[in-house]
Amino acid sequence: MTLMQDAQNKKANKLIQAAATAENLSEDFIREGVADGTIVIPKNINRKLSKIIAVGKGLKTKVNANIGTSPDYINLEEELVKLDVAVKAGADAVMDLSTGGNLTQIRKEILARCPVQVGTVPIYEAACRTVAQGKKISQIDGEMLFDVIEEQAQQGVDFITVHCGINKATVEILNRQGRLAGVVSRGGSFLVKCINATGKENPLYAQYDRLLAIAKKYDVTLSLGDGFRPGAAFDASDAVQLGELAVLGELVLKARAAGVQTMIEGPGHVPLNQIEANVTLAKKLGHGAPLYFLGPLVTDIAPGYDHITSAIGGALAAAKGVDFICYVTPAEHIRLPNVKDVREGVIAARIAGHAADIVKGVKGAKDQDDAMSKYRKLRDWKKQEEFCIDPEKLRTERAKLPPQQDDVCTMCGEFCAMRDE
Amino acid sequence: MTLMQDAQNKKANKLIQAAATAENLSEDFIREGVADGTIVIPKNINRKLSKIIAVGKGLKTKVNANIGTSPDYINLEEELVKLDVAVKAGADAVMDLSTGGNLTQIRKEILARCPVQVGTVPIYEAACRTVAQGKKISQIDGEMLFDVIEEQAQQGVDFITVHCGINKATVEILNRQGRLAGVVSRGGSFLVKCINATGKENPLYAQYDRLLAIAKKYDVTLSLGDGFRPGAAFDASDAVQLGELAVLGELVLKARAAGVQTMIEGPGHVPLNQIEANVTLAKKLGHGAPLYFLGPLVTDIAPGYDHITSAIGGALAAAKGVDFICYVTPAEHIRLPNVKDVREGVIAARIAGHAADIVKGVKGAKDQDDAMSKYRKLRDWKKQEEFCIDPEKLRTERAKLPPQQDDVCTMCGEFCAMRDE
Repeated sequence: MTLMQDAQNKKANKLIQAAATAENLSEDFIREGVADGTIVIPKNINRKLSKIIAVGKGLKTKVNANIGTSPDYINLEEELVKLDVAVKAGADAVMDLSTGGNLTQIRKEILARCPVQVGTVPIYEAACRTVAQGKKISQIDGEMLFDVIEEQAQQGVDFITVHCGINKATVEILNRQGRLAGVVSRGGSFLVKCINATGKENPLYAQYDRLLAIAKKYDVTLSLGDGFRPGAAFDASDAVQLGELAVLGELVLKARAAGVQTMIEGPGHVPLNQIEANVTLAKKLGHGAPLYFLGPLVTDIAPGYDHITSAIGGALAAAKGVDFICYVTPAEHIRLPNVKDVREGVIAARIAGHAADIVKGVKGAKDQDDAMSKYRKLRDWKKQEEFCIDPEKLRTERAKLPPQQDDVCTMCGEFCAMRDE
Repeated sequence: MTLMQDAQNKKANKLIQAAATAENLSEDFIREGVADGTIVIPKNINRKLSKIIAVGKGLKTKVNANIGTSPDYINLEEELVKLDVAVKAGADAVMDLSTGGNLTQIRKEILARCPVQVGTVPIYEAACRTVAQGKKISQIDGEMLFDVIEEQAQQGVDFITVHCGINKATVEILNRQGRLAGVVSRGGSFLVKCINATGKENPLYAQYDRLLAIAKKYDVTLSLGDGFRPGAAFDASDAVQLGELAVLGELVLKARAAGVQTMIEGPGHVPLNQIEANVTLAKKLGHGAPLYFLGPLVTDIAPGYDHITSAIGGALAAAKGVDFICYVTPAEHIRLPNVKDVREGVIAARIAGHAADIVKGVKGAKDQDDAMSKYRKLRDWKKQEEFCIDPEKLRTERAKLPPQQDDVCTMCGEFCAMRDE
């Protein structure tokens, strides 16, 4: 029995208990959410987790950090530091997106070390194997892709991104309509290349039941990827993107019937005034499945600062109902992120999530702001460290220019507005 | 005749011509906006400006950078570097908020060096003089305050923040209702202390006509300060804040009748779901006066990252109609910002403004994103530098980890989704 089936049968389950404790909510609340698919708790049966995280309706907005090697930069040691830093900075999940080096070994080490859920995008490994055999990306073999998925599931991966909504019909919309920035999802672009070169259906769509069987066997959560997420403001909310979303919605229902947990991934680059519509549609077409958004980035012009452009979009999206934010680092669109970028990315995404949680009414969120402001007014700097998002930052930045009088800061000195006369 | 009176009389005016050219809009459009008070072009008659900037309805969202000494840190040379860096990073205006050292001299140097409009908060200098005389803040003398205002206007300051909406009536609301974080506007807190200690009315309110006469004489724009801006999410949109706003709205009309340009300042710390209401009310009660917001910061818990919390709020506020964003640096709530903080603050605020301009339909805004994405798809990195918000950042960050193949980046290497097969 999968976790979802346990929940549907109202069976006691340790994951549900742990998630309820973590959220300070009742077990019934979590169980009902898992049963109806509006909450997921990604956890592979072959894995131990130090921290159980639920994602979905009524819960704290969660944050994912992507790490991993690329063909151009392979440094496992550094990836493990990124992992530690991401978790320490408060990431609720980590995805290993490695595409360089010994992928099985890298994943093994990340799975062994990571205290929180780990996700992957199996088609990356399938692409690497294909290219290593001297073939083109468009020659990715469907059987081999399923082998990779099963291997990764067997290894203990808790959730996998699968671009099942890219099929011949949606690719036809893309080919007909075109786009300014084309397909920017890596996995999505691989599948489009396969379909366009071979005319064959996407195996993840054509053999979705086979995918569900593997997911069920290891209780892996499916994160239905948005292979057609817009990579430019211009392409946002186009028929290509929405066509894929409609397919994903159907696949959510099939997964639920099989007792497999699903999330739906979301864009991408979206102008501010289209974010609410994107969230509303994804919740509606996705039948309330938890939404896992990358951004959205509210402008295309800020490489070097896309942790900020995505925090803007992510905060608004989460406030409107997005449950899970994939971080974007300052290195996005420029290069593989380094350790510092990872930390900045996690904190920016957490800020977006928290800003949303205040207005979502998530338990405890507003209390943290109120405590922070209370101690700010009291000029109690030690207590502020306790309630702020990054105590280390507050401490070290303040130490860079210490005030003449301990209770204030160098911005206003003796003129501090917080002081009474 | 003031600029506003010129505009009302449909007289040709070089400032209006320059602003129209800068915005790529017609002179008539700018003139009508200046005439009805929905657009301002702050410029003192005693000053030359290299760059004329209009602020208001239908225009690009502008960004202000605060610089200046504090009692705890006085380093004029560094402030001048901050000035240069802020302007180079794209600040449309600079405010000198100095409260330490020889204020007249500091202001003189900033005014001489700054190519864009300069604003001040004259009550800061009045407070410094008061304290220098061994008196308490609450003993700020009204006559002296007006002397300071006239001196600063005579010196060439283009716009001044004046907290005219803090009066006995609004302070009574504050005293009755209380607040979590109290009054966080420095100038606002000075005036509250004066009113509470002496029982006398705020001279900026009681003698508003005198203030208008000085503003008119030098054609200084009044930025009607939000002395009661909330400094905590908890205090947002309370009766204290809205009471002050209602007073400011009346003062806008009086200023217009006198031919004096006005802006209205806005909050502050505001949860995401109250931002639109704040903008709508400020535009309504302020009779369409340009809105100059500080943030809003969408959470209280992120010292060290308040350029991000304010970019989130600022983007949303500007998308809903805010015209002018006062930057917030990463040092906010911690210490006086350094040069690096100033740069980060300006860029973050510009990102927020630009994200808003896309959805406001500001001329050219969306075109920049489309060009950026076009060249991103083409993997033309030189052209991307031309259209991105910070070319230097893109160049230096990319150089930190150069790709094996020139057209891509180290994130995906040969697997770049932007490549065709």
